[in-house]
Amino acid sequence: MKNREDSVIGIVGLGLMGGAFALALQENGAAPGKLLACDIDKESLEMALAEKIIDEGFSNPEAMLPRCDLVFLCLNPQVLLRFMEKQMTFFKSGSLITDIAGIKGNICAIVEKNLRPDLDFIPGHPMAGSEKGGFANARRCSFKGKNYILTPLERNKKENLEYLKNLIYRMGFGRITETTAEEHDRKIAFTSQLCHVIASALVDCEGDTEITRFGGGSFEDLTRIAMLNAPLWTELFIENRRELLARITQFEESLDALKTLIAEEAGTELESRLDAVRERRIKMQEA
Amino acid sequence: MKNREDSVIGIVGLGLMGGAFALALQENGAAPGKLLACDIDKESLEMALAEKIIDEGFSNPEAMLPRCDLVFLCLNPQVLLRFMEKQMTFFKSGSLITDIAGIKGNICAIVEKNLRPDLDFIPGHPMAGSEKGGFANARRCSFKGKNYILTPLERNKKENLEYLKNLIYRMGFGRITETTAEEHDRKIAFTSQLCHVIASALVDCEGDTEITRFGGGSFEDLTRIAMLNAPLWTELFIENRRELLARITQFEESLDALKTLIAEEAGTELESRLDAVRERRIKMQEA
Repeated sequence: MKNREDSVIGIVGLGLMGGAFALALQENGAAPGKLLACDIDKESLEMALAEKIIDEGFSNPEAMLPRCDLVFLCLNPQVLLRFMEKQMTFFKSGSLITDIAGIKGNICAIVEKNLRPDLDFIPGHPMAGSEKGGFANARRCSFKGKNYILTPLERNKKENLEYLKNLIYRMGFGRITETTAEEHDRKIAFTSQLCHVIASALVDCEGDTEITRFGGGSFEDLTRIAMLNAPLWTELFIENRRELLARITQFEESLDALKTLIAEEAGTELESRLDAVRERRIKMQEA
Repeated sequence: MKNREDSVIGIVGLGLMGGAFALALQENGAAPGKLLACDIDKESLEMALAEKIIDEGFSNPEAMLPRCDLVFLCLNPQVLLRFMEKQMTFFKSGSLITDIAGIKGNICAIVEKNLRPDLDFIPGHPMAGSEKGGFANARRCSFKGKNYILTPLERNKKENLEYLKNLIYRMGFGRITETTAEEHDRKIAFTSQLCHVIASALVDCEGDTEITRFGGGSFEDLTRIAMLNAPLWTELFIENRRELLARITQFEESLDALKTLIAEEAGTELESRLDAVRERRIKMQEA
């Protein structure tokens, strides 16, 4: 893997995210070598080949992995674990592997524990997505200016980390944050999982599907992410339940405090609390 | 008010919403007669005059109201009540008045009770806004395709209602729903006020303003409306507290149900509940 311009990049799982990676790599000239992809869905592979987004498509990872210098594992967490267990022997010696799992702690620990010593695995989480899944919707998933979290392992090679970071910026991401798996899971429980739980609860609590006739955009904005990929999010919620449950409780406490102020008609206190919220949210926007 | 093409339209309160009305009326040729505005803020009036958005500006409603065939009252609910009490004698006989208050029940009942018999008041609520207030941000508040709720009174003249509805569509709104003040307040408590309370609680429960480094858009979308106009929303929450508190409780119940499924690691049940949420939200989008 000396000449990175000749690198062969492989994408495992050509769904929404895998497809978005393929597109971002091609469109930004970030994959000047070959771009390969494997998926169980032949239609996605054919579509990607027809649109010249990938160079070769594989139904069988055993045929692709030995050729790849860099592999993006775009799989749901549990599928990722099973894939690594089954395919470990097929990775090219010295290759770099990264993933996109929305939880890092347990998942990465298991992958690391069973990793072949000649492979380098850098856990990652691109903070991008779309409520519409599948390769056909990959163009809906823009990387432009988005956050990317990396939770590097101690054993990662410095030059591999630099190469991956460079590639991430070339794909259009705006900011890379390096942190631990623990901090990732704690913060993502708030910015991502708690938000999905709230959006789901908000849709769950109203049976009238015509309520949107009375919508002005707030309800729509708060619940767009409730059109979620149920199997994936079930997995993420349960896998990260310790952090997520703590966040739900924190949120419930704030909600209850506002509810009490409203019930008590405590206008002055409510207004100053809402003012503080406004100020904090403006600061968050600038961060 | 025979020839509606010559109608003089007056806007009381040239803030975000009043400004957006003035813009929408001018830009769509919906105000072929004169367009007047009054506001206590001279700067807004001067800006609107300089940009030729209004024909005349007034600091004093007593000078404007006697000339207007149609008046848009773009004021916070309590200010609206004080305004009507103080200015009632100055409205032109036979003129049509409408408002934009986000709560209808009590407010409209008080206005109606004290209304001069020769005036026609049609309560309205344009479902549009922006987290940035004031006339300078009026262009951020698009009406295109948005919902408009009317809660007509029994005494409203049919031809006035038709005229107002026509004007609303000409300003770019996509759908008008006519309903009672009670139904409005019940539904708006969900689509608007509950969403603002949730967004505020979500910001309230996290002190780290750099958390957005871990954001992928969900938190940002869910909390944009937390940058709210605190005095206005305090008023709306407290005025509509009966409906709003019931909605908060409903939401809490759904949130608690999801929390329990997560805590119990009830994957199958959680997934099917999230699937149902997804389906319902898609139906809501189509409504």
